[in-house]
Amino acid sequence: MKINENYKNLEESYLFSTIAKKVDEYTKAHPEAKVIKMGIGDVTLPICQKAADAFAKAAMEQGKAATFHGYGPEQGYDFLRVAVQKYYASFQVEVAAEDIFISDGAKSDVGNILDLFDADNTVLIPDPVYPVYMDTNVMAGRKIVFMDANVENGFLPMPPKGQKADIIYLCSPNNPTGGVYNREQLKEWVDYANEQDAILLFDAAYESFVADSALPRSIFEIEGAKTCAIEFCSLSKLASFTGTRCGYTVVPSELERGGSSIRKMWLRRQTTKFNGVSYPVQRAAEAALSPEGMAQCREHLDVYRTNAKIMTETLKELGIWHIGGENSPYIWMQCPNGMKSWEFFDDLLAKANVVGTPGSGFGKNGEGFFRLTAFGTTANTKEAMERIKKVYGK
Amino acid sequence: MKINENYKNLEESYLFSTIAKKVDEYTKAHPEAKVIKMGIGDVTLPICQKAADAFAKAAMEQGKAATFHGYGPEQGYDFLRVAVQKYYASFQVEVAAEDIFISDGAKSDVGNILDLFDADNTVLIPDPVYPVYMDTNVMAGRKIVFMDANVENGFLPMPPKGQKADIIYLCSPNNPTGGVYNREQLKEWVDYANEQDAILLFDAAYESFVADSALPRSIFEIEGAKTCAIEFCSLSKLASFTGTRCGYTVVPSELERGGSSIRKMWLRRQTTKFNGVSYPVQRAAEAALSPEGMAQCREHLDVYRTNAKIMTETLKELGIWHIGGENSPYIWMQCPNGMKSWEFFDDLLAKANVVGTPGSGFGKNGEGFFRLTAFGTTANTKEAMERIKKVYGK
Repeated sequence: MKINENYKNLEESYLFSTIAKKVDEYTKAHPEAKVIKMGIGDVTLPICQKAADAFAKAAMEQGKAATFHGYGPEQGYDFLRVAVQKYYASFQVEVAAEDIFISDGAKSDVGNILDLFDADNTVLIPDPVYPVYMDTNVMAGRKIVFMDANVENGFLPMPPKGQKADIIYLCSPNNPTGGVYNREQLKEWVDYANEQDAILLFDAAYESFVADSALPRSIFEIEGAKTCAIEFCSLSKLASFTGTRCGYTVVPSELERGGSSIRKMWLRRQTTKFNGVSYPVQRAAEAALSPEGMAQCREHLDVYRTNAKIMTETLKELGIWHIGGENSPYIWMQCPNGMKSWEFFDDLLAKANVVGTPGSGFGKNGEGFFRLTAFGTTANTKEAMERIKKVYGK
Repeated sequence: MKINENYKNLEESYLFSTIAKKVDEYTKAHPEAKVIKMGIGDVTLPICQKAADAFAKAAMEQGKAATFHGYGPEQGYDFLRVAVQKYYASFQVEVAAEDIFISDGAKSDVGNILDLFDADNTVLIPDPVYPVYMDTNVMAGRKIVFMDANVENGFLPMPPKGQKADIIYLCSPNNPTGGVYNREQLKEWVDYANEQDAILLFDAAYESFVADSALPRSIFEIEGAKTCAIEFCSLSKLASFTGTRCGYTVVPSELERGGSSIRKMWLRRQTTKFNGVSYPVQRAAEAALSPEGMAQCREHLDVYRTNAKIMTETLKELGIWHIGGENSPYIWMQCPNGMKSWEFFDDLLAKANVVGTPGSGFGKNGEGFFRLTAFGTTANTKEAMERIKKVYGK
């Protein structure tokens, strides 16, 4: 019996556990401090009422023989695939319903899609990065090449000249940096992928934060993407589905590699290793994507947008370099006074009682940077920014 | 870009599509025929009221900020892991709550667990078999050795002398045969696995049908199992969760291979490639496993048991060799009059207007056999058996 030895090459991430420990120690030593947490990547507002009602109704349907739903289609019910198709159409992106796969979340699909590719492929990943892209490939023993994201390229690295890549990860709006590629930049990436015969894994989990219509929300807004890209998306941030669990992946029928349709391979993978998403969850997702549901979701998104605006305005006022926040729930800031990431973490906690995420936890290029999130309440966000102004203003 | 070429070695299964096509053709030609379907492996009775109520309540909680649940623990909420632990304790099996992993269903975990093992392992699979065991290993390019299940061994093959195996699949009560291993037989398997340093993947999806307390419902009833076995189970059949999606996998802390804790590897896999099961689904599962919920579930299970009894009594009366049905929702019968599986399928459809599943669809040893399921209504089951008596009685 041979285990998958690649697991031994995984690095344990102590990022969030170290943060929790430090915060815990601080609050024990200073029980009077009102600590504001701006490190979490989870939403705080509920799913919209329209979705909750549909969810509860379908749950009750499961309790009556006449309305009970057993095994559903592994790819998702037609009603939801059509709702997702219409959602794409709402920002002028045409996607075939048969190319949409409903899942229990983008994280599952981002990990599981790698089943379709040989271990002997070179993977191109930005640094700093969402750790899942790296870890899932370490698990399979693939060769990983990092591309530097930094102040010079606005934390939006472009195709590296002369570097061969087979699998490319892009996340836009980006986690952790909040950077958003524009159309011209993504066109370069699509051309690069098509030229190399590579597959571009595009994580669009934060697309609902894109407010500027000049910026793309889907890789499929870019000509040529359907022959090279797979898009992962989710209702987690759009509709507060982080605990309800529903996402979707688009694998275009046009995408072929090694003489095989990648869509057909994914369908075969899903029908073999997955049994579809809970019927009531799919009904909740359908309701969230309805016009009424979307109007309710937008109210929640606007709260986070307001928070992000308060944060970016504060940083501008203080003259602190930052990106994100305008089309993203994440704000990526340079640590003030040349501090390193963890140094600033400690300083911010001690002096302002505010918690964020050290950028160095996302890769070497994150050193000296810091991530704040807009998912708190507006009152807390305002207070946190006032404190930051007091401490880091001149 | 190299795709996973192993996918090209997968055989397309036309079993259920061929059945659907034949039934469709027959009903078109004979619109007056009242066809009774006994081929489906899906439940027909709803989830219990207790579970539906808890499900709907938790769905509404997701719509209020005060009760909203965002990201939950990837391994499942404590409340459900403890409920599963108590469920095991109800038939005297001791399992640590930390070894229980909540999933969206046994099929996902049965497929995904293979991430932990090297491609260079020999896999031992019974024939006939649930196709997922085979296909998931074909996808990874593992060497598969089949063990013959047949009339001689009661379709319950025992450890093959002299055959080295690294990964062993057992399903008891079995799909498709309905055969159930006794304690002595499972002890032999556990000893064999421990001697070989193999891992036994035990699929207990049908454990809730075991009525005979002398028969094991869990591999962990067997001494030594915790150092060699992983158990997959589900609320699908126990509590009609086929469309609601919730299962659990037990990876004992005692299980180590290659110097690694398999439980820790699985935890790492799940935290990297999975984001937990929908909170309301977990609340529904907790309610189904409560004493009141279980009492309601048992009423539903009793309907299927009654159906199975009607079926086995008919087959006995007709002197047709069969197994299953007593501690399983599946009945595996020899085709009457020496017919081959598909021959009997056509004959049964034409003469009795009853649909079942040809055994040959589950492997070469299934040829000449046929699977019937007890998941229909009692009225339909009775009528189907009356028709079978008329056609195949002497």
